[in-house]
Amino acid sequence: MGLTIGVDVGGTKVAAGVVDEDGRILEKLKRPTPSSSPADTADVIGDAVLELKGRHQVEAVGVGAAGFVDETRSTVVFAPNLAWRDEPLKKKVEDRCGLPTVIENDANAMAWGEYRFGAGRGEHFLVCITLGTGIGGGVIIDGEMYRGRYGLGAEVGHYRVVPDGRRCGCGNRGCWEQYASGRALVAEARELARTSPAIAGRLLELGDGIPEGIEGEEVTLAAKEGDPAALECFRVVGHWLGQGLADLAALLDPGRFLIGGGVSDAGELLLEPARSTFVKSVTGRGHRTLADVRIAELGSDAGVVGAADLARR
Amino acid sequence: MGLTIGVDVGGTKVAAGVVDEDGRILEKLKRPTPSSSPADTADVIGDAVLELKGRHQVEAVGVGAAGFVDETRSTVVFAPNLAWRDEPLKKKVEDRCGLPTVIENDANAMAWGEYRFGAGRGEHFLVCITLGTGIGGGVIIDGEMYRGRYGLGAEVGHYRVVPDGRRCGCGNRGCWEQYASGRALVAEARELARTSPAIAGRLLELGDGIPEGIEGEEVTLAAKEGDPAALECFRVVGHWLGQGLADLAALLDPGRFLIGGGVSDAGELLLEPARSTFVKSVTGRGHRTLADVRIAELGSDAGVVGAADLARR
Repeated sequence: MGLTIGVDVGGTKVAAGVVDEDGRILEKLKRPTPSSSPADTADVIGDAVLELKGRHQVEAVGVGAAGFVDETRSTVVFAPNLAWRDEPLKKKVEDRCGLPTVIENDANAMAWGEYRFGAGRGEHFLVCITLGTGIGGGVIIDGEMYRGRYGLGAEVGHYRVVPDGRRCGCGNRGCWEQYASGRALVAEARELARTSPAIAGRLLELGDGIPEGIEGEEVTLAAKEGDPAALECFRVVGHWLGQGLADLAALLDPGRFLIGGGVSDAGELLLEPARSTFVKSVTGRGHRTLADVRIAELGSDAGVVGAADLARR
Repeated sequence: MGLTIGVDVGGTKVAAGVVDEDGRILEKLKRPTPSSSPADTADVIGDAVLELKGRHQVEAVGVGAAGFVDETRSTVVFAPNLAWRDEPLKKKVEDRCGLPTVIENDANAMAWGEYRFGAGRGEHFLVCITLGTGIGGGVIIDGEMYRGRYGLGAEVGHYRVVPDGRRCGCGNRGCWEQYASGRALVAEARELARTSPAIAGRLLELGDGIPEGIEGEEVTLAAKEGDPAALECFRVVGHWLGQGLADLAALLDPGRFLIGGGVSDAGELLLEPARSTFVKSVTGRGHRTLADVRIAELGSDAGVVGAADLARR
C-alpha cells in the first residue's frame, strides 16, 4: 500500500494529511471542528479527504477521534469531552469520500505514530500519555496497538486517583485527567492567581489581568521564563503525572513512557517533577528496571501520521 | 511434552503437583514454607520436585512464587510480603532437582491455570485478581500471558487508590491491596469488633472473644450465616474491589474479570457489592460492553496447574 490519509479530529480543529510509508506528510489541511454540531464533523472530515484525494493517489483513510472507539474501529461509542454518542463515523466518512476508512482513538493514533516514526521507535512495550485538555492514552504491547476486548483499552485518563475527587466529563469523580492534564494546569494557575495574586503577578499579566484569562500556553511561557508561580503549577501537575506513571508501571511495566500533547511543550519543566515522583513512588523501586520517560517527538503531527499508518493495517 | 510439575509457593505452604496436558493433577504434595528463612525455600521446592520425579516421568518444572519475577523467568527480584530480594530461584531449584525450571509470579500462574482449564476458558482478554493476604494480578492479552517489558506487569495490588492512604508492605501508601484483600477484610472486621462490639457479637464469638482472634475464614463463615456485621465487612471490601475493577477496565478493557484466592470463597457475598460498584463506576458506562465478573473455578489448585502448564512454553 502506498499513500494513505490520516485525520486527527480534535475539539477545535480537524487536521488531515497525506502520508507515505515512511511517515512523511506530503500535504496537510486544517479545518475548524464544527463542535456545536458533532454530526457535521463527518462531513468536514469527508470533504478534507476528498480534496486531498483529488491531488494524490491514496488508498485508505485513518481517522483519530477524541473518544472511545469500538473494537471494529467503526463507531465512536462515547466521547467524554465531545457530544458524540454511538456515532457511526466510519460509515459516514466512507459514504462521503469513497475510501476504506478506519476509526481509531486519537491517543492510540498518536501513540502509534510515535512508536513507528517518533520517540517510541525500538521500544515494543510503550505507554504514550497525551496531555491536552484531558489525558489520552495509547499502549503498544509487543509491537501491537493495544485495544482491549471491546476497543476501549488504554483510557488512562479515566482511572480514579482521588476518591470523591474533582468532577470529570466522563461522569465520575477523581479521574487522573482532572489532575494531570492541561485543564488541571490551567485550574492550578487560575486558583493561584485568585488566592495569591501577589505571587501570580506574571501569570495575571499574561492573562490580561484576570485569572480566567490564563490559558495553558501562558503558564508554559511564564514557566520557561522562570516565573516561580508557573513553575509551581508544573510541579503540582508533574507530581500527579509521575504518580500516574507509577500506577501504570505497576499495572503494565512498560519499557518507556512518552509524554505528548500541548502540555508537553514545557519539556523538562514538566518531566523533571514527573520523573521525581515516578521514581519515588513506583512499587518495587530499587529492585526493578524503570521505564524511561521521554517527551514525544512528532508534536501535533503524531495523530495524522499514526492514523494514516494504522489505516494500512 | 507430557507431564510437568507445578509448584505454588505461598507464605505458609509449598504445594507441588504432577500435572498432565489437560490440566489434571496426578499427585500433589504439600510442605510448610520455611518463611523465617526464604533461602531454604528453594531446597523445600527442590526436594518436593525430586520426590515427585521419583514416581513420575516429568520433563519440566514451573514455580509460581509470591513476588516480582524478572522477564527471564529466573529471579524473584522483590517480594512485598516475603523476604526475597534478587533471589535466583530458577538456578537453585534446577541445581537441586535437575529439571528445566521456570519461575512465574504466583498470580500469573493462577491466571494462566484459570485461562487454560478454569473460569477463563474462551475469553482471550482476561484479568484475574487473586485476593489472598494481599492482591495478586494476572493478565491474559489475546491469549498470551502478559508480563510487561521487565517481567513485572500486572502487579495490580500496588497501584494507588488512596493518596496518603494505608501503609503497604511494598513501601508505599494507599495501594489497592490495603483496601480489597484478605488483610483488608480482617482489618475491617477487627476494627468493627473493637469499636462496635455490640454489633460484632458473632464475629467476636468466632474469634474467641477478642478482635485479634478474627481471621478471614471467620468473617466468611459469619457472612454465610447472614451476620450483618460480617456482611458489612464484605460490602466495604467488595466496594473497593469493584472500584479497582472499574479502574482496570478503563486501562485494559478486558472481556472478563476472575476473582480468586481465599477471600473469593465468599462467592456472591463478595461479588454482589463488587459488581454493583463496578457498573456504577466504570468510565463510559451505558456506552460500552462490560466485562463479566466471575469467581475463579480451580480454587487453590490454580497456581499448581498454571505453573505446570507455563513450564511447557
